[in-house]
Amino acid sequence: MKTGIAHLYIPGPTNVPDAVRQAMNVPMQDMRAHDFGAQWIGLFNDLKGLFRTVDGTVMLFPGSGTAAWEAAITNTLNPGDRVLMARHGQFSTLWVEMAERLGLEVDVVDVDWGQGTPATEFAARLAADRKGQIKAVFVTHNETATGVTSDVAAVRRAMTDTHHDALLFVDAVSSLASVDFRMDDWGVDLAVSGSQKGLMCPAGLGVLGVSVKAMAAAQTATMRRAYFEFKDMVNLNAGGYFPYTPPTQLLHGMRCALDRIKAEGLDNVLARHARLAEGVRRAVAAWGLELVAEHPSLYSNTVSAIRVPADVDAREVIRIAYDRYCLSLGSGLSRLAGKVFRIGHLGDLNEGMALTALSVTEMAMAEAGVNIRFGSGVAAAQHWFSTGRMAGAQVNVAAE
Amino acid sequence: MKTGIAHLYIPGPTNVPDAVRQAMNVPMQDMRAHDFGAQWIGLFNDLKGLFRTVDGTVMLFPGSGTAAWEAAITNTLNPGDRVLMARHGQFSTLWVEMAERLGLEVDVVDVDWGQGTPATEFAARLAADRKGQIKAVFVTHNETATGVTSDVAAVRRAMTDTHHDALLFVDAVSSLASVDFRMDDWGVDLAVSGSQKGLMCPAGLGVLGVSVKAMAAAQTATMRRAYFEFKDMVNLNAGGYFPYTPPTQLLHGMRCALDRIKAEGLDNVLARHARLAEGVRRAVAAWGLELVAEHPSLYSNTVSAIRVPADVDAREVIRIAYDRYCLSLGSGLSRLAGKVFRIGHLGDLNEGMALTALSVTEMAMAEAGVNIRFGSGVAAAQHWFSTGRMAGAQVNVAAE
Amino acid sequence: MKTGIAHLYIPGPTNVPDAVRQAMNVPMQDMRAHDFGAQWIGLFNDLKGLFRTVDGTVMLFPGSGTAAWEAAITNTLNPGDRVLMARHGQFSTLWVEMAERLGLEVDVVDVDWGQGTPATEFAARLAADRKGQIKAVFVTHNETATGVTSDVAAVRRAMTDTHHDALLFVDAVSSLASVDFRMDDWGVDLAVSGSQKGLMCPAGLGVLGVSVKAMAAAQTATMRRAYFEFKDMVNLNAGGYFPYTPPTQLLHGMRCALDRIKAEGLDNVLARHARLAEGVRRAVAAWGLELVAEHPSLYSNTVSAIRVPADVDAREVIRIAYDRYCLSLGSGLSRLAGKVFRIGHLGDLNEGMALTALSVTEMAMAEAGVNIRFGSGVAAAQHWFSTGRMAGAQVNVAAE
Amino acid sequence: MKTGIAHLYIPGPTNVPDAVRQAMNVPMQDMRAHDFGAQWIGLFNDLKGLFRTVDGTVMLFPGSGTAAWEAAITNTLNPGDRVLMARHGQFSTLWVEMAERLGLEVDVVDVDWGQGTPATEFAARLAADRKGQIKAVFVTHNETATGVTSDVAAVRRAMTDTHHDALLFVDAVSSLASVDFRMDDWGVDLAVSGSQKGLMCPAGLGVLGVSVKAMAAAQTATMRRAYFEFKDMVNLNAGGYFPYTPPTQLLHGMRCALDRIKAEGLDNVLARHARLAEGVRRAVAAWGLELVAEHPSLYSNTVSAIRVPADVDAREVIRIAYDRYCLSLGSGLSRLAGKVFRIGHLGDLNEGMALTALSVTEMAMAEAGVNIRFGSGVAAAQHWFSTGRMAGAQVNVAAE
Repeated sequence: MKTGIAHLYIPGPTNVPDAVRQAMNVPMQDMRAHDFGAQWIGLFNDLKGLFRTVDGTVMLFPGSGTAAWEAAITNTLNPGDRVLMARHGQFSTLWVEMAERLGLEVDVVDVDWGQGTPATEFAARLAADRKGQIKAVFVTHNETATGVTSDVAAVRRAMTDTHHDALLFVDAVSSLASVDFRMDDWGVDLAVSGSQKGLMCPAGLGVLGVSVKAMAAAQTATMRRAYFEFKDMVNLNAGGYFPYTPPTQLLHGMRCALDRIKAEGLDNVLARHARLAEGVRRAVAAWGLELVAEHPSLYSNTVSAIRVPADVDAREVIRIAYDRYCLSLGSGLSRLAGKVFRIGHLGDLNEGMALTALSVTEMAMAEAGVNIRFGSGVAAAQHWFSTGRMAGAQVNVAAE
Repeated sequence: MKTGIAHLYIPGPTNVPDAVRQAMNVPMQDMRAHDFGAQWIGLFNDLKGLFRTVDGTVMLFPGSGTAAWEAAITNTLNPGDRVLMARHGQFSTLWVEMAERLGLEVDVVDVDWGQGTPATEFAARLAADRKGQIKAVFVTHNETATGVTSDVAAVRRAMTDTHHDALLFVDAVSSLASVDFRMDDWGVDLAVSGSQKGLMCPAGLGVLGVSVKAMAAAQTATMRRAYFEFKDMVNLNAGGYFPYTPPTQLLHGMRCALDRIKAEGLDNVLARHARLAEGVRRAVAAWGLELVAEHPSLYSNTVSAIRVPADVDAREVIRIAYDRYCLSLGSGLSRLAGKVFRIGHLGDLNEGMALTALSVTEMAMAEAGVNIRFGSGVAAAQHWFSTGRMAGAQVNVAAE
Repeated sequence: MKTGIAHLYIPGPTNVPDAVRQAMNVPMQDMRAHDFGAQWIGLFNDLKGLFRTVDGTVMLFPGSGTAAWEAAITNTLNPGDRVLMARHGQFSTLWVEMAERLGLEVDVVDVDWGQGTPATEFAARLAADRKGQIKAVFVTHNETATGVTSDVAAVRRAMTDTHHDALLFVDAVSSLASVDFRMDDWGVDLAVSGSQKGLMCPAGLGVLGVSVKAMAAAQTATMRRAYFEFKDMVNLNAGGYFPYTPPTQLLHGMRCALDRIKAEGLDNVLARHARLAEGVRRAVAAWGLELVAEHPSLYSNTVSAIRVPADVDAREVIRIAYDRYCLSLGSGLSRLAGKVFRIGHLGDLNEGMALTALSVTEMAMAEAGVNIRFGSGVAAAQHWFSTGRMAGAQVNVAAE
Repeated sequence: MKTGIAHLYIPGPTNVPDAVRQAMNVPMQDMRAHDFGAQWIGLFNDLKGLFRTVDGTVMLFPGSGTAAWEAAITNTLNPGDRVLMARHGQFSTLWVEMAERLGLEVDVVDVDWGQGTPATEFAARLAADRKGQIKAVFVTHNETATGVTSDVAAVRRAMTDTHHDALLFVDAVSSLASVDFRMDDWGVDLAVSGSQKGLMCPAGLGVLGVSVKAMAAAQTATMRRAYFEFKDMVNLNAGGYFPYTPPTQLLHGMRCALDRIKAEGLDNVLARHARLAEGVRRAVAAWGLELVAEHPSLYSNTVSAIRVPADVDAREVIRIAYDRYCLSLGSGLSRLAGKVFRIGHLGDLNEGMALTALSVTEMAMAEAGVNIRFGSGVAAAQHWFSTGRMAGAQVNVAAE
């Protein structure tokens, strides 16, 4: 019999704010009523603001981020198209797999898990593509498996510098509304996200930002699609309606979540993520452990993937945290299984919650055999969180 | 400012029972926790019971029934496959359109909207198909647009009689758990449904029953697919897990809904739908109006599509019911627009709710100009509902 | 296994709007936080608006309307005080009983159940009270047991005409926000209500309006009290706080309910109650049955108490409605048991809901042996509701 | 704009488990329906189990614990009765005040705030009361203001030793279901509690355990009462009904809460409270701070009242925790204001939550000027929580 809060620190689905849960607890509605659509026009507009796009179009697909991945591909590409993708973590790997399943010819660049999208290598390949055979470039903005944030702007620069007009696909599933994302500035054509990460809603909606260029490509793209057809969406969304029964509760939840983001201010949301993430990273350093991300410039503000010592199984840390302390950590995926656990620190979070994760993780690590000094990571994070807030100078920090 | 219950009598999404809403009001969960899967094994088993299949497999796709339509097609057929479909309403028409979009060669049989799947014509076409070029036969079990329930068993008999081994696809979106559906008895290979009809949950899950034969077909089918890939689902569902973040709240809602169906008993659920539907039909008869369904053998127990007199616009009836009386009726779709309104009478319903729909509809019709005697339809339904329950013989029914 | 809406037509607790349920679904709060109080100041102000008082004070007692009855008495009267009360229904009878238990000397005027407060007799008694021994006059504004609304203004006039300065207590439990209630205009000193009637919230809060004169009386009143002490309440309420842990969820619910009343407009709320109540009364007339209320001037717009024929047990009507049709009616209380059933038509209601009550009641009555023509009451109500809304003249009403 | 969990560590209302919130989210019910009562019989029985009484009676008063205090007094005592009470904190002080307001003659024993009920002094007074003028002895089992748990058994022994037959009143508001409480073993006659502490429900129900002896006293007690009358309650509770509209949602919540306590096992619940409380106390020791409770035998397992250094205002600690870190602490009440803050650690709690409170409190203290080593208290608690759970011996604890 577990008691108390089920502490959720996986990198998604994230904690749903109580206000969002309230907003979702509504009876079903008549989704063809004449006043149904009006309530959702603003939702699409506000999502555009989150993507930082002015002329782009945002669509919501009932399903997951994976559904939005597929919608992006099938609406804008043709069977057999050559595309450029990198593999540097489990999610970028799965995206490659999807592209192949859907019949694309994928130029894969494999880099270490812990690296970001290799913009330089991409630049070289794009430069070499004299005939413009590469129809799309894919970037996983925030690789959730490794806690690595890639430099989308650098990829765009590589494309610009090589005068390449491929479409730019970006997986922003775990970055939207958590890490700075700039669809228009970076010239992103297809920006894929989902409801259950920075948007603080339950899973169930794939969110897709589509540029004007991508909308044009969709006019002629011949890949087979039906459920994910852009034009069905766009036609009906214009009035706030949907081509098939929408998950209305989720729409209400997202409305509430966007209101919260507005009230906090997007820049403040991003700053908060950065602050809380830095607290976690200082704890990791105090523990003497390493992140999977190989360089500070790659550190993700939404998730930290932490390597445990070689003689400890990270799965044991996760199991102990869950079974004994009712706290969920992210597991190491695929080749990182057993070597890594992850702390998700995105969405509806505050300092106390970050410290909860750290203090329980310290116990779970210690009990799993990691040589950890109790309170050390917590103290490092507290110090960081308290910086500049001290009444005087009399504080001694344990971690120092 | 509307007050009181928002009366919902569209044929889906249907009214979500309070117990289901309660069950869904939970925080997000760790969908990779070691004890997460165990809670869903029974869900899949119970869904098999609803489909009345023993060896079939049930899958849940985040999305709508439309998503399950697509999953069924793309996993079991090959590009360019010839399939046999009928068009006799908006939803069967949309399914044809999807099949064509996905690259199938569709033999379409058009019949009047108001007719069911033409089993005899299907038999003839199957008999003529000496070379077995028809790879699949599609039946819309309950055409929600016209309120017509087709005879799936007759189609199966046609296939058996012609020794045809095409796959049998059935759209059971608005029949599952409302109208008798027998996957194994009728040899249905792909049975498509959704969460938001007889299953009494919000929209958001496509439900798909897959026969052993269809599972085998999926091994070799070459149609492109990724998000909807059966094998990803099956592998993970075996342990109660999902290939992508599932909409956990909906799973909890469905668990509760299935418990309710169990407690009532599936046969009782079907009998209740039949009883309530008959009450609505008696009201329609008392009003002197006609159903779109052309013969009693086709009457749907989940929705009645009702023709208004030629001099009245059915949209006006719907508008008045909604604007003045806070009651949603289904509209006439496509060629039935303006000629028809629909009363959904499926899911979590009782006599009082059916009478609510009828009494408000009488007012809306009268106010829209239909020559209606107030109370006449209500009385006919009351008489039917009260049959055999009278204390004595002193009752005079207005409708008689 | 019951299915569908549990139709609730008792005269309280009433149906809680979904928006109110949403608003209440919040975690516990720190009721001593520095920003806790600010959110409730407006609540007290808006309640004053509902009571139509400018200088009065409104208090919320955790408990029921009965708690507010007691708070009103114990704070403003002295042991052994003589008070003037009428008995004309179960609730006025219970109030007399409470007054006696609390040690007041009650001058009881018994009138028929079905009559209102006897203002003329009260006038006579007040005129006869030369020494001003009567310290308080009690009026049950809306006697929920009989469906009788009394004329509070007439009692005030009787007091004015006799220059009597007793305190005027009014039970507005089932009238506030449903029937016109004017605390200041009528010189009401203690106005008692509760959360679970016209305020559309769950039970749990007694609501009390206190005049300036009553507040002054509380300064010297010597009746024993502690939990209900006005001054504890007033001191803390001034800042939006409470002397003991308040039921915060209910406060949020009431906030939402008041917002709804504001949005509709109090006058519109009252007009709606009058319109729906008249529909019910026309149905009763069409059935050939009689109300307990003896004169149209006494008809309550919140509840109708309906006499069944002598050879029928009203409890059987209620039982059938509940067991067979999942609809709750109010029972006949005390001496009316078995002779009367009641339809509550207050709070969050619309025409469709009123018709639901009527149509199911017709079946329950018929099945219990009442000679009822099906649809007759429904038609009478429909006719009333549709008045002036007809498109043309072609409508024939069954009830005519 | 606050984000994340609103961390609630006041000593009540406590955190309501999600399952309880789910259970409460129901529409209103017909509280006179023939099947309404049956669902609550078990609730009363289970509450008896919590009180550890076999022959006692449990009643639920809509209201707060304060309401139950008053119900206990007014039903069993007579005006002017002499009673023996101690004052050693704000709540025992308020109870004295209530007793005086209600007309009892109170023998008050004042002891230091931080001491428990003075059983020895009580014994002396009882021994001196040769004529048996003391009609009741009051014990505040858990003084929430000071974090002191008194020895009820010792008071009972004092009564037994002096052959005194006064009634024994115990305030178990913040001890029931959190600290060992034994109504029958200790011969408690009136045990007062509330829904919002160990019972993990929102505020709104006073819970009262009444012994056979107290029930007998209620037959003849002459103190005025009406709303709180035992016999009204008992008569109706027997069938699961209530004398006035009950707060049904709270009853459902309590049903769920009791199911959770059953599933965990009452002894396990108490052990968990002891374990978590000890963690907090070890943190306090590590901080070099003192509890208000003057001796370990008095330490409360539900709340710790912590003294801050003389040069710091405890209100500032509380304000910072709330404003900067969204965490609510209990304040110092009355004479302890500014000198003390309190951490509530009762109800639905786990280790992670205790650590959240400690880690945020460390920051709030440091920022308010307390000389605190970051992580020190957290480490002490972690060490305690991890005791016996280590995989090996390689752990060094920062606090050591």
